[in-house]
Amino acid sequence: MPTPDRPDHRIPDERSIARYVATVPELAARLGGGPAAWDVREIGDGNVNYVFAVRGPAGALCVKQAPPYVRAVGESWPLSPTRSGFEFRALREHARCAPAYLPAPLHYAPELHLLAVEFLDDHCVVRHLLNAGGSRAGFGADMGDYLARTLFGTSDLALPAADKRRLVGEFEANIEMCRIMEEMIFTEIYRPFHRNRWTSPELDPDVRRLRSDTALVIAAARLKNRYLTRREALLHGDLHTGSIMVGPGSTRVIDQEFACFGPMGFDIGSLLAHLLVNYLAQDGRHADGHAEAGTEETPQQHWLLETVAELWHTFVRRFLELWRTSAHGDAYPATLFPAGADDEDDVLYAERSAYLDRIFRDTVGFCGAETIRRVVGFARPADFTDIEDAGRRADAERRALRLGRALLVDTAAHTCVEDIVKTTRRIRDETPPD
Amino acid sequence: MPTPDRPDHRIPDERSIARYVATVPELAARLGGGPAAWDVREIGDGNVNYVFAVRGPAGALCVKQAPPYVRAVGESWPLSPTRSGFEFRALREHARCAPAYLPAPLHYAPELHLLAVEFLDDHCVVRHLLNAGGSRAGFGADMGDYLARTLFGTSDLALPAADKRRLVGEFEANIEMCRIMEEMIFTEIYRPFHRNRWTSPELDPDVRRLRSDTALVIAAARLKNRYLTRREALLHGDLHTGSIMVGPGSTRVIDQEFACFGPMGFDIGSLLAHLLVNYLAQDGRHADGHAEAGTEETPQQHWLLETVAELWHTFVRRFLELWRTSAHGDAYPATLFPAGADDEDDVLYAERSAYLDRIFRDTVGFCGAETIRRVVGFARPADFTDIEDAGRRADAERRALRLGRALLVDTAAHTCVEDIVKTTRRIRDETPPD
Repeated sequence: MPTPDRPDHRIPDERSIARYVATVPELAARLGGGPAAWDVREIGDGNVNYVFAVRGPAGALCVKQAPPYVRAVGESWPLSPTRSGFEFRALREHARCAPAYLPAPLHYAPELHLLAVEFLDDHCVVRHLLNAGGSRAGFGADMGDYLARTLFGTSDLALPAADKRRLVGEFEANIEMCRIMEEMIFTEIYRPFHRNRWTSPELDPDVRRLRSDTALVIAAARLKNRYLTRREALLHGDLHTGSIMVGPGSTRVIDQEFACFGPMGFDIGSLLAHLLVNYLAQDGRHADGHAEAGTEETPQQHWLLETVAELWHTFVRRFLELWRTSAHGDAYPATLFPAGADDEDDVLYAERSAYLDRIFRDTVGFCGAETIRRVVGFARPADFTDIEDAGRRADAERRALRLGRALLVDTAAHTCVEDIVKTTRRIRDETPPD
Repeated sequence: MPTPDRPDHRIPDERSIARYVATVPELAARLGGGPAAWDVREIGDGNVNYVFAVRGPAGALCVKQAPPYVRAVGESWPLSPTRSGFEFRALREHARCAPAYLPAPLHYAPELHLLAVEFLDDHCVVRHLLNAGGSRAGFGADMGDYLARTLFGTSDLALPAADKRRLVGEFEANIEMCRIMEEMIFTEIYRPFHRNRWTSPELDPDVRRLRSDTALVIAAARLKNRYLTRREALLHGDLHTGSIMVGPGSTRVIDQEFACFGPMGFDIGSLLAHLLVNYLAQDGRHADGHAEAGTEETPQQHWLLETVAELWHTFVRRFLELWRTSAHGDAYPATLFPAGADDEDDVLYAERSAYLDRIFRDTVGFCGAETIRRVVGFARPADFTDIEDAGRRADAERRALRLGRALLVDTAAHTCVEDIVKTTRRIRDETPPD
């Protein structure tokens, strides 16, 4: 367990976690009994933090601790442990907007870089579910709802300018986590970099082509500039299927340590990218011929693309509803545009559509950027890496590269979510990928 | 003089300013002699602060002090005196980018909300110069250069992301000053508000029309959202001809207390608006018939429109030059786009043009918004208010309203600075204004 005076030199262990929890009455009360009766188990499978499940006779907790480095790499990649403070802060802010979709934030210990949140019993990580061939009714609607609530609720449409500026000021300090995204998504993968990884030698020519693809590199840089300059809403900042858990009647978003203010399309596009990646990866996963490019989609694949559309449409519907009912912010202020006008005379109708069209364009671009970086960057998802046959894996990954490029460079050709779905299907059907 | 323990209850006077300056060795040394030999004079004519000229046998200083209210209104309009800290901070940051165009920042006393800067001998405020019928060779080039240097130099093109995020974080706290702009430019003037003022009854119908002009109100709200969300560069934040002084071979920008991160076009558009306002006001100022709508432009008016074009073209030239030579930032990073490619092969050529086109569109919109608010808002400029004949004043102001609307609502019809000039001339020639 890190101690306040030597926070950087010790790794937390199960015993020290229990010792700490015992010192916080509201946490101890949740567990019931005493430390001797508690079961503490490290369960983290993420890249950056340690995560412990703490179970007692009365209940359970999830405790996360941020070491001063990237957990998956070790001390050779230092990383500010203050990220746990931003995670807790973002959790609380998003919980204000969409409590049903988050684990309840319970406790934060700044000197230990440790936070405790509600334990999500009987939940599983969506990426695992998808990779096991599963699907989940209502997932797109849940995530569209979550995105609308958190993005609207932390935007200038919902927040008075003074509150928003204070929040932006806080999150500007999450510099190191933002830096990881700036570098990983928009920069590193477009040049030789020691942490880049891909299916080699199969994709070597594709990676060479990627780096010399000027239109692509410029489009990525343009989006990077947007990530760096737009402060539209408080983003999750790393929203992929590994950051979402589902359980009985419950969808929860975890791992907010990358939270920052940025363009709304960043979160939406990122999540869509992982659904599309999974769709393409499925063709590589089923070596028994259940799914194969050029063949019929599996029901799961069909569901994945329906989920993409359902997510976006739900987002739009809820976002517009919130704009009509809860526009307490200083952008488009209520003093000029009073709420309650019905749709027919709503003077803001066209403006709202244009606003959402802009979010959609950003979504398409960021979706493309995220798709590409998950093929050739440091953080490749299990969707691909679990495919044992390198040839089949490379086929799926090559299609993902092609999809990413289509979305990132030909963004304007995609004016509605059905266009994204259509491009994805077209690319799947082009067999074999070159 | 405010004292640290009772900062809000005393107004600085000449004697207390001298007493304070005497306690700061580097300031006293600039003046020479001792307080008894110093001449202190309040010279402020701005809306928010007290400004003192302090002259000694060896030199002079300008001392600014921020009372906890808006100076022009009094204690009934409270305003955080922390604005003087943001002014000093912005001065230093802009001085890093464009030192020739700023008074040197010398000293800041946070507990007194007081700053000392270089005294600008033999300088006069550009608004006074223009209202006296004057012009100034090279003014457009100087201001284009200043804008390119300060906006580029504080953008993600020039600054590493970590430095930029730290700076943004600092300036997010300038909440009250930003609030004034948010309200005055984009909100208050579009509804009945006790501080709005205009030439009444002449403009009463125009003001009524303004408030019910849905397309206009929405366009203003759209720009407000941009002011609230974009963090492109550290803006001056209130760049008008009253914030600029010229002297022998010198152009200096003062009064940075509204500084914040925002869209680049905000500063550029604001300054252009004041040149255009002056152009239209000149027709009202010259009751002797020298200038009159429908007649030939005066040489000064011709110069004003040439200055508008010269400013923009210089801005573009210098901005592109800086992008080619000094792109040390994380947007479009040097690792992907190494500097030094010559123009022919410059892969970023089209991207840079598109980037500047976006700044131009913002510039047109913000120029229109600023033009309108200077006719019907709280802070009407002497350009108009000095015109004694209410009928002539109203004619000029009505043209300004029409110009503002054209730029704000028909932004897309203006694709180059010459379009702005053309619209301005067209509106001047439509006589009489309705």
